[in-house]
Amino acid sequence: MPVQDLEYPKQPFSTVRRYDSRASYSLEQIHQIINTSLLVNVSFTVPDTPFPQTLPMIGQMGSFDRPSADTGDVLDLYLHGYVSSRVMNLSCKKDDEQKKQKTGGDNDDAPPPAASAAEYSQPGPTGLPVTIAASHVDGLVLSLTPNSHSYNYRSATLFGYATPVTDAAEKLWAMELVTNSVVRDRWRHTRVPPNGAEMQSTSILRVKIAAGSAKIRSGFPSDDKADAEDEALLGRVWTGVVPIHTVLGDPTPSPYNRVDPVPGYLGDYVKGTNKYAEETAQEQATKAMQPKGKADG
Amino acid sequence: MPVQDLEYPKQPFSTVRRYDSRASYSLEQIHQIINTSLLVNVSFTVPDTPFPQTLPMIGQMGSFDRPSADTGDVLDLYLHGYVSSRVMNLSCKKDDEQKKQKTGGDNDDAPPPAASAAEYSQPGPTGLPVTIAASHVDGLVLSLTPNSHSYNYRSATLFGYATPVTDAAEKLWAMELVTNSVVRDRWRHTRVPPNGAEMQSTSILRVKIAAGSAKIRSGFPSDDKADAEDEALLGRVWTGVVPIHTVLGDPTPSPYNRVDPVPGYLGDYVKGTNKYAEETAQEQATKAMQPKGKADG
Repeated sequence: MPVQDLEYPKQPFSTVRRYDSRASYSLEQIHQIINTSLLVNVSFTVPDTPFPQTLPMIGQMGSFDRPSADTGDVLDLYLHGYVSSRVMNLSCKKDDEQKKQKTGGDNDDAPPPAASAAEYSQPGPTGLPVTIAASHVDGLVLSLTPNSHSYNYRSATLFGYATPVTDAAEKLWAMELVTNSVVRDRWRHTRVPPNGAEMQSTSILRVKIAAGSAKIRSGFPSDDKADAEDEALLGRVWTGVVPIHTVLGDPTPSPYNRVDPVPGYLGDYVKGTNKYAEETAQEQATKAMQPKGKADG
Repeated sequence: MPVQDLEYPKQPFSTVRRYDSRASYSLEQIHQIINTSLLVNVSFTVPDTPFPQTLPMIGQMGSFDRPSADTGDVLDLYLHGYVSSRVMNLSCKKDDEQKKQKTGGDNDDAPPPAASAAEYSQPGPTGLPVTIAASHVDGLVLSLTPNSHSYNYRSATLFGYATPVTDAAEKLWAMELVTNSVVRDRWRHTRVPPNGAEMQSTSILRVKIAAGSAKIRSGFPSDDKADAEDEALLGRVWTGVVPIHTVLGDPTPSPYNRVDPVPGYLGDYVKGTNKYAEETAQEQATKAMQPKGKADG
């Protein structure tokens, strides 16, 4: 654990504007949301279309240089996934050109760069600019009026620069990190290390993080005063939270499985994960938010 | 149900390239994934930064003109969410400029537009270009080697043009659609209709869909022949699927709730949703994929 709770710097593109009382920039909170997500959504722009690409990938925060780093430390995001080298090269090139334009400063038509646009692009990050999003829905928040309905949720966004991991030692380390994030301790219970062809065919991206934010809502619904004092309404509309969590079911052996019963590390992981998920949803259902300025939405 | 299974046209930006045997362009399948997702991720480019913005929103497919349309029909996506009008205006303008550049054809530096770039931008869609992503993880697929590990999943991506809904009747209809997607039949069991201030403060976006795709994996793991015939390995590594589904827990009344017991429509929704989710995960665990060209990943 770092000595103090580290926060990502607020950048124009990373600052939460709606319901900003729900915002957090804590590395610990953001990394925790990412690490407990089964999938993260990786978005980036591609040439010749106005639509960003979004790919679901498995991701995990980690530090190859300091593998014992804590969740709240400065970490990279390792993604198990593939982006075509064409897209990666074109997009990196485009990014370089944008930077050149911005520092050139002789293009009167271009909007003036935000104060920190130059700042975050220092000291010259390379790679594909990506936005990473992950969300847990912890509950349905049911109030007296549709407008005050909400979810309890924990969502995180990271912004960074992705490059393929080419160093063999780092790649192997990241493959183990990712595999063990799917089932704790799975790696050493499989046939490892991967052979040459497997190393070759596996694509791992490392994302150097430039900024990040989280947005968290917890607790019961809150209704406007006029509704909350309407006796007839209170007598008619159920209000509260339906907690939500993800459940790992009973491991179902493959037709060629010969290991029976289910190994301890796997059974324990299923039980532990389910217990944590259910408890989290219950806690979030009743945990009051920090006081905030606006009625709920 | 439409007479035949409709498919979205394949566009350069919407065509699945990795594991394309898992791809689907069926409106029915794609819309079903979106409609059963608690959240969708909405991504779009913003000026002055290379990072796309990604916002989690509640979304539901529907047709205001033909409210009785089926899931497999041509539908719009209605999003409960807000994008600042500054971003919306700037991004729409940028999109217009890009189109102008492309049709101008006198810019030798620009990469040649893809054959269909002009096509999808006809007949002149307006709005913010957005990419919508939603995924269900149906199971952990555990094989003999880390490289053959996978998830069972159903993921969908839609590409379209978002505009704020301003017509009062359409907005009211969409608010009901979205509310009832959170809990079936919830709308009429709350205080409706929304008052003027509530109508004003609620932001609904309608996305006209230009293209879409889904990617689906189901079934047991599959391992390479050399591993699958390794007796010692088979005797040591558990292989199979851990099914995953989302569970709605027991509704927890708010401190000001006075309706007891939990109303039938809510209790039934919780039970029905859980049953469907659990059965889907179980089915996906054992359901064989279509034959495909490449070993599993």
